[in-house]
Amino acid sequence: MSNARSPQAPYEVIRWSAQGLALLDQTRLPWQVEHITVPDLDSACEAIATMRVRGAPAIGICAAYALAREAMRLAARPAPEVREGLAEAAARLAATRPTAVNLRWAVTRVLAAVEPAPDGAAVASLATDAATAIHAEQVEADRRMAALGADLLADGAGTVVTHCNTGPLATGGLGTALGVVIEAYRRGRVRDVLVDETRPRLQGARLTSWELQQHGIPHHVIADGAAAGLIGPRGVRAAFVGADRIAASGDTANKVGTFGLALACRYHGVPFYVVAPRSSVDRATPEGSAIVIEERDAAEVLFAAQTPLAAPGARALNPAFDVTPAALITAIVTEAGVLRPPYGPALRNAVAGSGG
Amino acid sequence: MSNARSPQAPYEVIRWSAQGLALLDQTRLPWQVEHITVPDLDSACEAIATMRVRGAPAIGICAAYALAREAMRLAARPAPEVREGLAEAAARLAATRPTAVNLRWAVTRVLAAVEPAPDGAAVASLATDAATAIHAEQVEADRRMAALGADLLADGAGTVVTHCNTGPLATGGLGTALGVVIEAYRRGRVRDVLVDETRPRLQGARLTSWELQQHGIPHHVIADGAAAGLIGPRGVRAAFVGADRIAASGDTANKVGTFGLALACRYHGVPFYVVAPRSSVDRATPEGSAIVIEERDAAEVLFAAQTPLAAPGARALNPAFDVTPAALITAIVTEAGVLRPPYGPALRNAVAGSGG
Repeated sequence: MSNARSPQAPYEVIRWSAQGLALLDQTRLPWQVEHITVPDLDSACEAIATMRVRGAPAIGICAAYALAREAMRLAARPAPEVREGLAEAAARLAATRPTAVNLRWAVTRVLAAVEPAPDGAAVASLATDAATAIHAEQVEADRRMAALGADLLADGAGTVVTHCNTGPLATGGLGTALGVVIEAYRRGRVRDVLVDETRPRLQGARLTSWELQQHGIPHHVIADGAAAGLIGPRGVRAAFVGADRIAASGDTANKVGTFGLALACRYHGVPFYVVAPRSSVDRATPEGSAIVIEERDAAEVLFAAQTPLAAPGARALNPAFDVTPAALITAIVTEAGVLRPPYGPALRNAVAGSGG
Repeated sequence: MSNARSPQAPYEVIRWSAQGLALLDQTRLPWQVEHITVPDLDSACEAIATMRVRGAPAIGICAAYALAREAMRLAARPAPEVREGLAEAAARLAATRPTAVNLRWAVTRVLAAVEPAPDGAAVASLATDAATAIHAEQVEADRRMAALGADLLADGAGTVVTHCNTGPLATGGLGTALGVVIEAYRRGRVRDVLVDETRPRLQGARLTSWELQQHGIPHHVIADGAAAGLIGPRGVRAAFVGADRIAASGDTANKVGTFGLALACRYHGVPFYVVAPRSSVDRATPEGSAIVIEERDAAEVLFAAQTPLAAPGARALNPAFDVTPAALITAIVTEAGVLRPPYGPALRNAVAGSGG
């Protein structure tokens, strides 16, 4: 239980009702604030793969709701058949983004929840309950992480730096790392936020900048490469980033560019905090080298929107994530507490205490 | 004297003739390969400020030629009056880009060269000789640096990484860091080049990618933030970057993002080489903290070409350069030799032996 009262997002990211699932389309932000309906499994897979919904926790929630929708569609059939349909749907959903572990965690949890159902209608009902619970728990976990993370900043307003987007858009709650920033601002501990633009998809420039505007928090967008040179002169006090997957060792896969920001923080003696729910911890992955890094379309590097950025015919590499070695991480903030090195035992304990 | 025969660029970057000065317009590359004429001082200042010509050595050469043109325009007047006009022109040119030291070095050298002139025509003649010599010496220095830098790579083809643009476009010769890469490729020591796209101006994506294509050298453009995560898996053997100003301590100001690449190389145990002519060494600057970093328009971060990249109204910071601490630099390759730490005495000796 948290007694911190955090401001909720002034916009709805994932909307679930009896009528179905709707998502704030993050590929159109910040220029259009528009919800799209996600009526079926195909559209859910498309929404995740094309990053209409993104952020490890948010895609887990979206996938869980998509399974609930699929169960409702199949509800007239016998329970084993519905469960089989859900297992296939879960496999398709899990394949859309290979790096984020929350996606696999969420669909596995929904599949486990429907095991006891005696008939198709019960499968649908239990799947819906599981999806709703995953979403509600994320909202509560975000509130806890925001409070714990904000405690890490000393009194007095200062500058922090962040990477990619980890706000309400990324979780359907208050966010992970950006949730900490929002809460710390509310407490008067943040004066300015340096926002890595986060090439190639520009989640920092497009989404984090928009979210901070919505919350009225002063910030500057910077080129990713500018962080190492700005952390010193701007007196940055801490970095807060999210995680797509945390290995058992604490090595953390997150949006490409995170590793470089961690190196810059280490060089300048600035704390580097990872903020992530326990569902981002992958007990089955011993260390970072075992994490599969999603390779995305080179066009994301070679074009911005429809504007070509490189010589025609140029080739590009486009890893979506990188792995930050545990040794560069000052602490990992989870809803179960702030974990410090050595991360092996700390993560085991935190995850062992998880309800998920 | 070098006996290395390096391939020359298959395109002309800075063209000087009796008819005047022409530049390959680097703001239109890679989409249009178009020379613009630079008939007067105003257009030279505009070309440097807007980065139609860029790269520390190239803007020095361009400024020297612009002074020669100005001297020709004033040649009918008495020598002191022409010299006074040139001093004013030199001050205007030097102010266009505050960080690159070659610009100041080149205009100072032209002003010194015209001191003995008895009349205006002689001022014009000596200024032209000085500018032509600066350009010719750069071509020769590039050839030397390319040979010395390529020697640093062991036999067998491997992958190297570079930042920004340091090819023929940046010097009017073979280039500095990219000159090394071109020469090393010719010797069979480079199989692939990772090219930092170099936000915000995308000199890597737009210019280096185009130059490597012209030379037929395989390469991949990467987001700047991707380097830290790719250096290990791709087996990168060395980084080669240029310099806009090298302080007496060896601290090196170069295009923003260089510092972060140096940190990534240090973490992975990969050599990080700065390649720059002695004219980039600023004896008057003791260390990096004394270097003024040019702050450019935030719009460069917030827009790519005309495409907005961030939320409307977002603010940005746009330092054009950062300073890489000397401790992160494996060696500094100059036309006078490969300098190793401690850089203080090594740079003093190298610059003391400079003809410039």
